[in-house]
Amino acid sequence: MNQLFSRLEELFPEMVELRRMFHAEPELSFQEVNTPNYIADYLERLGVEVKRNVGGRGVVGYIRGGKPGKTVALRADFDALPIQEETGLPFASNVQGVMHACGHDGHTATLLVLAKVLMEYREQIEGTVVLIHQFAEELAPGGAIEMIKAGCLDGVDVIFGTHLWSTMPLGHIGYRQGPIMAAADKFELTIRGRGGHGASPHETVDSITVASSVVSQLQQIVSRNVDPLKSAVVTVGSFHAGGPFNVIADSATLVGTVRTFDSSVQDFIIERMEQITNGICLAMGADYELDYKKGYPAVVNDVTETEQFIDAAIQVQDDVIVHQMEPVMGGEDFAYYLQHVPGTFFFTGAGNENEGIVYPHHHPKFDFDEKAMLIAAKCLASSAIQFLNRKQINKQEQPS
Amino acid sequence: MNQLFSRLEELFPEMVELRRMFHAEPELSFQEVNTPNYIADYLERLGVEVKRNVGGRGVVGYIRGGKPGKTVALRADFDALPIQEETGLPFASNVQGVMHACGHDGHTATLLVLAKVLMEYREQIEGTVVLIHQFAEELAPGGAIEMIKAGCLDGVDVIFGTHLWSTMPLGHIGYRQGPIMAAADKFELTIRGRGGHGASPHETVDSITVASSVVSQLQQIVSRNVDPLKSAVVTVGSFHAGGPFNVIADSATLVGTVRTFDSSVQDFIIERMEQITNGICLAMGADYELDYKKGYPAVVNDVTETEQFIDAAIQVQDDVIVHQMEPVMGGEDFAYYLQHVPGTFFFTGAGNENEGIVYPHHHPKFDFDEKAMLIAAKCLASSAIQFLNRKQINKQEQPS
Amino acid sequence: MNQLFSRLEELFPEMVELRRMFHAEPELSFQEVNTPNYIADYLERLGVEVKRNVGGRGVVGYIRGGKPGKTVALRADFDALPIQEETGLPFASNVQGVMHACGHDGHTATLLVLAKVLMEYREQIEGTVVLIHQFAEELAPGGAIEMIKAGCLDGVDVIFGTHLWSTMPLGHIGYRQGPIMAAADKFELTIRGRGGHGASPHETVDSITVASSVVSQLQQIVSRNVDPLKSAVVTVGSFHAGGPFNVIADSATLVGTVRTFDSSVQDFIIERMEQITNGICLAMGADYELDYKKGYPAVVNDVTETEQFIDAAIQVQDDVIVHQMEPVMGGEDFAYYLQHVPGTFFFTGAGNENEGIVYPHHHPKFDFDEKAMLIAAKCLASSAIQFLNRKQINKQEQPS
Amino acid sequence: MNQLFSRLEELFPEMVELRRMFHAEPELSFQEVNTPNYIADYLERLGVEVKRNVGGRGVVGYIRGGKPGKTVALRADFDALPIQEETGLPFASNVQGVMHACGHDGHTATLLVLAKVLMEYREQIEGTVVLIHQFAEELAPGGAIEMIKAGCLDGVDVIFGTHLWSTMPLGHIGYRQGPIMAAADKFELTIRGRGGHGASPHETVDSITVASSVVSQLQQIVSRNVDPLKSAVVTVGSFHAGGPFNVIADSATLVGTVRTFDSSVQDFIIERMEQITNGICLAMGADYELDYKKGYPAVVNDVTETEQFIDAAIQVQDDVIVHQMEPVMGGEDFAYYLQHVPGTFFFTGAGNENEGIVYPHHHPKFDFDEKAMLIAAKCLASSAIQFLNRKQINKQEQPS
Repeated sequence: MNQLFSRLEELFPEMVELRRMFHAEPELSFQEVNTPNYIADYLERLGVEVKRNVGGRGVVGYIRGGKPGKTVALRADFDALPIQEETGLPFASNVQGVMHACGHDGHTATLLVLAKVLMEYREQIEGTVVLIHQFAEELAPGGAIEMIKAGCLDGVDVIFGTHLWSTMPLGHIGYRQGPIMAAADKFELTIRGRGGHGASPHETVDSITVASSVVSQLQQIVSRNVDPLKSAVVTVGSFHAGGPFNVIADSATLVGTVRTFDSSVQDFIIERMEQITNGICLAMGADYELDYKKGYPAVVNDVTETEQFIDAAIQVQDDVIVHQMEPVMGGEDFAYYLQHVPGTFFFTGAGNENEGIVYPHHHPKFDFDEKAMLIAAKCLASSAIQFLNRKQINKQEQPS
Repeated sequence: MNQLFSRLEELFPEMVELRRMFHAEPELSFQEVNTPNYIADYLERLGVEVKRNVGGRGVVGYIRGGKPGKTVALRADFDALPIQEETGLPFASNVQGVMHACGHDGHTATLLVLAKVLMEYREQIEGTVVLIHQFAEELAPGGAIEMIKAGCLDGVDVIFGTHLWSTMPLGHIGYRQGPIMAAADKFELTIRGRGGHGASPHETVDSITVASSVVSQLQQIVSRNVDPLKSAVVTVGSFHAGGPFNVIADSATLVGTVRTFDSSVQDFIIERMEQITNGICLAMGADYELDYKKGYPAVVNDVTETEQFIDAAIQVQDDVIVHQMEPVMGGEDFAYYLQHVPGTFFFTGAGNENEGIVYPHHHPKFDFDEKAMLIAAKCLASSAIQFLNRKQINKQEQPS
Repeated sequence: MNQLFSRLEELFPEMVELRRMFHAEPELSFQEVNTPNYIADYLERLGVEVKRNVGGRGVVGYIRGGKPGKTVALRADFDALPIQEETGLPFASNVQGVMHACGHDGHTATLLVLAKVLMEYREQIEGTVVLIHQFAEELAPGGAIEMIKAGCLDGVDVIFGTHLWSTMPLGHIGYRQGPIMAAADKFELTIRGRGGHGASPHETVDSITVASSVVSQLQQIVSRNVDPLKSAVVTVGSFHAGGPFNVIADSATLVGTVRTFDSSVQDFIIERMEQITNGICLAMGADYELDYKKGYPAVVNDVTETEQFIDAAIQVQDDVIVHQMEPVMGGEDFAYYLQHVPGTFFFTGAGNENEGIVYPHHHPKFDFDEKAMLIAAKCLASSAIQFLNRKQINKQEQPS
Repeated sequence: MNQLFSRLEELFPEMVELRRMFHAEPELSFQEVNTPNYIADYLERLGVEVKRNVGGRGVVGYIRGGKPGKTVALRADFDALPIQEETGLPFASNVQGVMHACGHDGHTATLLVLAKVLMEYREQIEGTVVLIHQFAEELAPGGAIEMIKAGCLDGVDVIFGTHLWSTMPLGHIGYRQGPIMAAADKFELTIRGRGGHGASPHETVDSITVASSVVSQLQQIVSRNVDPLKSAVVTVGSFHAGGPFNVIADSATLVGTVRTFDSSVQDFIIERMEQITNGICLAMGADYELDYKKGYPAVVNDVTETEQFIDAAIQVQDDVIVHQMEPVMGGEDFAYYLQHVPGTFFFTGAGNENEGIVYPHHHPKFDFDEKAMLIAAKCLASSAIQFLNRKQINKQEQPS
């Protein structure tokens, strides 16, 4: 493993070069053309067996080890965002209004160079490493679903993925057993009362008082209905109703988000929202329309594989700090892979206050410390190899 | 009319004597025996045609005038209350725990002496005066319904009644066109959730939060649903739920009152209470039971007869102040008579601060200034005679 | 009086002509030039003593009767509205976007022709008739305040005014003792929370939940705080807060109206709104800004003068139906005159379903039955003359 | 270690005998006399160095190992509950109304027999084992605080404790890193409005509507104010206000509980309750009194020591199932020990459906499967010995 780590260190300049190249030429979700072509060509040049256009625009590479064994998948996403870059970096985006503002350029560069190293050590590998280069992570429904349908997980025993994370300092690795990223849903609720003159409420159904009651009652979903040991957020982000001051509003529109880490909680909240809105509207003589759109599900890490990952991560470098982290409320379609195979998604610290790398993801000045790519590569390598080498001896789990 | 007023003045001492006699021997609603007997005997001694046990315990007298004409009814109630008297008056109640604390003793004495005078002038009367001595005004369903069923209003064209009123100064007469006393209803609402451990709200339906929401939503009946030009009150007088601090309450019981002056508003409120409670309970997964008991309806005075009454009242005495009054929120089963025939119910001021007559009705120290009886008698006489004498010429009314 | 009525009937065609002339050339509030000039010229031609530019753009005429006596004022307003007419009438507005959509053209024509007739009978009049032609009734602060400051009520004993009313059938006269039109106020309430990510409510003060609670609590002003025998409306007409679904709104803006008939209720509601908003914001850690703008006060008719008016109105024509009406929730700056002198404001029915005159005031298709002007003129004439002729004998009023 | 386990198995009958003896003679919290005396005598007979009356009624024993080393404490509580036993067991309580309904009899028996075995192996032990026999766990403020003040943790490096748990099947061991039992607080909130007649809400401050609003607003503490990743419960368990249906209630009393796992959340909730109640009362013109009583704090297990414990527990027996468990919402004053030294508190499954051992703790029919004592003893022994033997090599922890 140490040889492998050294080799990655040697190739770090190439990682940087690749990352900057991708960064300069970002492509939006579901519009990626040059990026997947470059990836596929690069892998083929290494001798990796490549499938193109997997599930649309994905690229999957297969590194068949010299010895038989299990199969581990590593995933990197490669799409960019509709943001106008303001970093002023020499390798800043050449595309107006499009930017790698989330680090997917780094994910891709990391996995490509790791592939190069793994190919060098192919003979010693027991089993197969599947390289999943995914398109369209930033835009629901995402690329993962289609790549899975197209077979990218066929035969895969475990999957690992990471996110370079600018709000975590370089040198840190954040893991979590169980849910690490939330399901992020959107709802739009229209309450239809019956408008009328502001001086004659009795001839109307006041949609503002109805909607205000709905907002108040929705609070009880989290305060009373969801298991207090489980996390959930129900936020009404906007409330718009009415025009002139002396006219009672005909309808009110509430738009908001629900965050959960557990699909049973998610489904329960949807049911409760419907039930509450229906009841309040019945109580007040109003109608409603609830449009609930599920976003990506929660990213739920496998307990055992995460423990194994911790062991692997600790070994990558003396000065790496591996710690449990709080779940992140944002969404990630890595969630879908984990619905099919066990594995873990971890965060690789990439912030660096001293170098002014402090902006959050999706910010026009977002950047990351490129040294994080090396750490990410080592963690992925270590996890993959450790998994392929290990004989399964699990700690006891809670029955049912 | 002036002769008649003079004669009433001469007989004022008898009125006082009768009142004190009744006061000393009060009888509870639906338990009156001696009082109606005394009334009937007294009227018969005068030569009045008497019906006993009308609708149960009522007494009705008929004074047939010397000339043919219309028929006017005058009503006085004669029951007492389950209150222990604390006045210290020489003629205080001889019955433990029972008291004429509402002035019905005075009403009865007033009407009896008025009957005596009317009998003296019988030959000059054009038409008939019906004397309705009613039992059980204090206790729902009251005596009026049964007396009406038994025919006490048969042939009656108009009805007048009054209440001696200790919180209005002696010398005042209060009238009101339209509603003068509210309908006073009672409701009992039980919300059934599902109790459980205080630390596990998600396994329960918290009846306290549901009932609190119901209380809040009920506010909108008055604030949004009832015509702002109409009066209504919805009061939750008691809220009881739960026991130990760490147990979620299984059920909550709300008890309260609704006050209205208009039966369509009353019915609408009942409907809205049902609708609101049903909706909130559906919203929160609870059940409920709503027991709504209508009390006496509103006392709604006839507009024309009240105007006529005003004219009659102004003439009774130089120093009487006749004024419009705000409606009184308490109930009165005089309401039922006015549902059958036109008429008016008025208040005769009977308070006297200088003599310490300041206690409200139903108070253990309640008393009234006996001179009010004389004014009441004159007003009733004046109204009755004026009605019998007048030819109908109405001011224009609003069509539908 | 009958002569006077006949003369008005003879001059009805002139009334119609004048009304149509004004209708065709409407002028907006505070921008009236030709209308007041026309009025002043017309009155001067009649020999009426005229003051121009009273309080700005008002015109006041003085008809000095042949005999000494009291002084009665009659008021008509003459401004138009910023509405694009859609009636298709031959005399429709020649001014783009401006329309007499409230009948002030009719008010003015009525009073001018009435002035002509009164001048013909001047010698017989005991006292003075003041003609108040008011500008800018439609736009707060209105013209009445300034005209009063400028002395238009000096020496005036009583004032009468009317509104032609398209939602009341022709032939009806609506009166009311006490409040007949509500005070109509406007408020704007901004709740400032602290915005943030929709998934992190604990780092924010959610202005939508705070504002929803304020809406709910405001209901208790009417349901619990205002005397149930008094009318009041508190309406939140618009509620606007927030943008993206996953962002917690920084602030929420509530705009609405308060309607009352009693200035003590009005002041109490303002106080309660402040208190409630302050309390809820303190409870939730938010700030607020409440901008409350009082509109015109309630139009409160004098009880005695209204009774006198009823008598006067009944005599104007055999087929006129004079009835008490429910208060109207809209505002009128006639209110200010009644704060200085007694008087009454009444409604003259001007709707006619058979002729398709059914549109409400301020509607682009608003019109009124012109025969209503004749009835209005007769009522004003009758009231004025009756007042000047009568010796004061009031019915008793309630002391204190 | 295996020898030690075997010896415990041999002595299991003594454990049972001791448990039944304690069970038959239960003593209430803060009233324990015979139980601590028996414990102290027993330990002294073994040769254990004993301190009596530690912090009041506690007993502490010191087993000094043959070799120098660290110090590990094991804790067992010995008080009973004011419950009338209904088990019908042959060794049921001899004391009327007092019962070992929580398993503390078993805890004590377990630790005494373990002490006996450890004394037998004393020479091989590196370091010291402190036996903490605690009084008064069932009744706040509990015995732990005073025993700690009296020095029972002096020199102690780590502490272990367990609870026999009838709702977990025999053979299971439940652990949890971090919070395993909640802080359980009690609050009593009295809202003082101003009572009055049910028909005159405007003359009152309706304490029921105020308190209902408070209940609704309190929901936002959990739904909006507490970090969604942290657990908290705010339950109003009882709401009592008002008497007669037609009287507005003068005051309302809310009693409830707050559960948290983090003292900063706990303090924040107290602050928010005060702020919300204060704000709502200000808004509505009411006063309040909030009496908040903190119960035991959360039991927060040390992450590292819990991991070590897992390893130790896995070895105790082939058929033991060691699993992570959800936190328990009930309170335990073991919390205080963990505020001073690291350690872990675990649950030892003691339910047995086949034998009808299914009743929850504090139930009159509560019992536990006595074989659980043997498992508990082995876990405690294993943890203690493993701790004393191990050289500290900690996994990396998250910095700051």
